[in-house]
Amino acid sequence: MSAHASAIPGYRYGDPSLPPSPLDAAGFAELRAACLLTDDDVAALREAAPIVEPQIEEILDTWYGFVGSHPFLLASFSTPAGPDTSYLGAVRARFGQWIRDTLRADFGPEWLAYQQEIGRRHASGKNETDAVAGAPEVVPFRFVVALIAPITLTMRPFLARGARDEQQLERMQAAWFKAVVCSVALWAAPYAKEGWW
Amino acid sequence: MSAHASAIPGYRYGDPSLPPSPLDAAGFAELRAACLLTDDDVAALREAAPIVEPQIEEILDTWYGFVGSHPFLLASFSTPAGPDTSYLGAVRARFGQWIRDTLRADFGPEWLAYQQEIGRRHASGKNETDAVAGAPEVVPFRFVVALIAPITLTMRPFLARGARDEQQLERMQAAWFKAVVCSVALWAAPYAKEGWW
Repeated sequence: MSAHASAIPGYRYGDPSLPPSPLDAAGFAELRAACLLTDDDVAALREAAPIVEPQIEEILDTWYGFVGSHPFLLASFSTPAGPDTSYLGAVRARFGQWIRDTLRADFGPEWLAYQQEIGRRHASGKNETDAVAGAPEVVPFRFVVALIAPITLTMRPFLARGARDEQQLERMQAAWFKAVVCSVALWAAPYAKEGWW
Repeated sequence: MSAHASAIPGYRYGDPSLPPSPLDAAGFAELRAACLLTDDDVAALREAAPIVEPQIEEILDTWYGFVGSHPFLLASFSTPAGPDTSYLGAVRARFGQWIRDTLRADFGPEWLAYQQEIGRRHASGKNETDAVAGAPEVVPFRFVVALIAPITLTMRPFLARGARDEQQLERMQAAWFKAVVCSVALWAAPYAKEGWW
């Protein structure tokens, strides 16, 4: 967690008071294997980090443009008064940090605990972090899964700007895809019925 | 549904007695948009169909090899007596048909109803279709999400064998990815807590 990150309201990666992930190291090793997320992918994420990080605001513009152009997605950030710009802004700061954290993840217990917290914030107590009143209580889970597609595919042109060749681009793109799938698999935990996750 | 397909035990795509999907056409249009699954992607799936279909047994060999080499995945097909080969075989026939159906999907109400049924069979009543006793009652949902990665990435070399150029390969691969994500988003419905899907 960088000094910059710690200034982001509601950001709790590394907070020792977070409950632990339901997965221990052995359980997470299984999930990583199911996602094909290898050590070489982790190396590719590290290569992607300095390429992606200077473009994070532009990436967020792309993603927020996508959300903003789809009323059923924007609804999660809206109250009866319309889209809540301060809520959108607070989430945006954490979303940008999530990109950094994913590219530099050590996939250890603190990272796992924060993935559980990210999932929880989508599933229940969604608005309490940012003290929002009147927005929907839950991000519908079908959209959380669906967004694997745009979050994966829109990264490619940003990676391409810094990739040294097609082969490195493919490696970084595949690693990003696997890390996104793995993250969403973890975020699913608070949504699933007891014992079914 | 082809005559061939109707001979697959437990295969119910097109069965009018299936309950309808929780999504109507408007709701599914939203989910498709969230997955970026456009009409051009549907066209690309149709182009992929004649390339992929003659290779389905080889694709299933790849996927079953992956499942079989990971005890935590094989566990879903195992009883206290070990892996249940007739269960594995029954699911395999439907899995192959799922590839055909995804490539040729009209994404209409019958297709949607059968996605709900596929989700239900992973989440509850998992073993009843094939009258299996003693296997786990549920495929853990985290692995259903995780398998988006291998099911997507392993398709590429099979598509490459029949693609006329790199551009068509990319189109077909992206369309397959989006269709898999969309399917898993639908399969999630029976796993989610009431009202959270």
